[in-house]
Amino acid sequence: MVTPVLIGIDWGSTSLRAFLIGADGSVLREHAAAKGASTLHGHPAFVAALDEVAGAWRRAQPPLPLLACGMVGSQHGWLEVPYVRAPAGATELAGGLAQPGDTALRIVPGVLCNDGLLPPDLMRGEETQIVGALAQHPQLADSCVILPGTHSKWTHVAQGRIGRFATHMTGELYAVLRQHSVLGRLMPPEVTPDMDAFLAGVTAARDHGELGLPHQLFAVRSLGVTARLRPGALPDYLSGLLIGHELRAGLAWRAGHGLRELPLALVGAAPLCERYQLALAHCGQAADLVLDNTAPAGLLALARAARLLS
Amino acid sequence: MVTPVLIGIDWGSTSLRAFLIGADGSVLREHAAAKGASTLHGHPAFVAALDEVAGAWRRAQPPLPLLACGMVGSQHGWLEVPYVRAPAGATELAGGLAQPGDTALRIVPGVLCNDGLLPPDLMRGEETQIVGALAQHPQLADSCVILPGTHSKWTHVAQGRIGRFATHMTGELYAVLRQHSVLGRLMPPEVTPDMDAFLAGVTAARDHGELGLPHQLFAVRSLGVTARLRPGALPDYLSGLLIGHELRAGLAWRAGHGLRELPLALVGAAPLCERYQLALAHCGQAADLVLDNTAPAGLLALARAARLLS
Repeated sequence: MVTPVLIGIDWGSTSLRAFLIGADGSVLREHAAAKGASTLHGHPAFVAALDEVAGAWRRAQPPLPLLACGMVGSQHGWLEVPYVRAPAGATELAGGLAQPGDTALRIVPGVLCNDGLLPPDLMRGEETQIVGALAQHPQLADSCVILPGTHSKWTHVAQGRIGRFATHMTGELYAVLRQHSVLGRLMPPEVTPDMDAFLAGVTAARDHGELGLPHQLFAVRSLGVTARLRPGALPDYLSGLLIGHELRAGLAWRAGHGLRELPLALVGAAPLCERYQLALAHCGQAADLVLDNTAPAGLLALARAARLLS
Repeated sequence: MVTPVLIGIDWGSTSLRAFLIGADGSVLREHAAAKGASTLHGHPAFVAALDEVAGAWRRAQPPLPLLACGMVGSQHGWLEVPYVRAPAGATELAGGLAQPGDTALRIVPGVLCNDGLLPPDLMRGEETQIVGALAQHPQLADSCVILPGTHSKWTHVAQGRIGRFATHMTGELYAVLRQHSVLGRLMPPEVTPDMDAFLAGVTAARDHGELGLPHQLFAVRSLGVTARLRPGALPDYLSGLLIGHELRAGLAWRAGHGLRELPLALVGAAPLCERYQLALAHCGQAADLVLDNTAPAGLLALARAARLLS
């Protein structure tokens, strides 16, 4: 039986996942709750949410350290934890932990990337997943790591630290266009995945992306109105178009920064990573490594670097 | 005093404008109402709306002909009027008019463009504006006409007919991202125009558009979070970024189809055309002609072509 050494929390905007983590990085127990940082208001609400998901684990003796990452550390979270500047690895991140009030919880900072004259870029939560991926797979010390999601991150990891990175709002564009734009109107509320339609969208972005996303998006409507695609296929065509545009720009970014020889890793929820893997292959690019949730491993590595473990 | 010869209606999704039109194309009277086609359900609701905006004008003797364009002729309108295929001019459009039930109203069809292997494109309402622009400015018989809006249209007019065209969902992207995405969260509800921020967005698209729209959009957030742009400047930065991406793709489309030597016209609401004119100039391109609402002139020309005038 592995002994628990840490309570780790992946605390996002809309939900949280709490992990009871063993010394070897294994997840011994897990709780999920709809207590996202943007749904809670005021210190007592966060204290109560924390007690709800981790209170029972905390009452063990001696009390386990508590470490959280994600939007809980943002302006609209529990406590705004200042961004650490890239390049940043476990040491820099551990040096930036912050504690809300007199609680036992520490929160991991996000990372700010300043890429010359371009606008800055930001991550909060993904830094911990990257640290976890590095802890499990040391060969990623020099790599390109893609974390697909609401705000996908393309990251250059250099000498074990987060270097330059770029956010793509792919997942959020999908959600708002499906729910709030004319494109969603022809789509049925429930659909089964249609990978042919998905790849047709990827192909359109890959082969004709220069026509521009604002133009190509309209095809979701025109293909539906003219019955060239059935209504149930439209969500996946939209998904393919958006992910295709992300890959088109992301692969060019990776090549432009001379990262083509480095291992390419996908880190995130399995179904989404599968979708990205398929789209990458469609663009002639293999993923060298595909990892599921690495946040617990990252929280453990950061707790170690901050000497929180007894 | 000019004699009225036609009641024309520009009947969109969310609102309508009715015009009492003189033989010389002048607008003698105008009514606007929040009776958009997507807000009305069933034949009697449309009949009542029509009577509300045009009933008084109709009761004159002899009764004036009635002609409407726009989404009133769509699947979700009063009567679905089949699209006419491009190339289409006033003659083809007049040949496709349809009449809902036993009413006196005729509705202009939209236009469908089939550009080889690419997805089809659609317009409904803009065809009438283009016909109006051509009626007023015969030099546009061979031209490139841009109609900025919720769904901007870039149109190749060839020998006085609508040829190939491309829709860009620029205006709708702006609205849904501002109202429903994380980008809107830092924006104050009311702002004054900030043309510096607008041009900064255009510049980002012009100079670094290859980084991809899904990526560049995130700068609206990162520039706000890091206080590089004040909250009141973010809406116009977003506007500039989106219009910049439309121009980047649209100007390449225009060049790719050999239309660079043709006159370039902007047709639409004056404040939006001004914005596009500024962005075009920022991309080294002058607009040869800028026209305000040409729908009444288009409705008159189509009524003439269909021999509806007495």
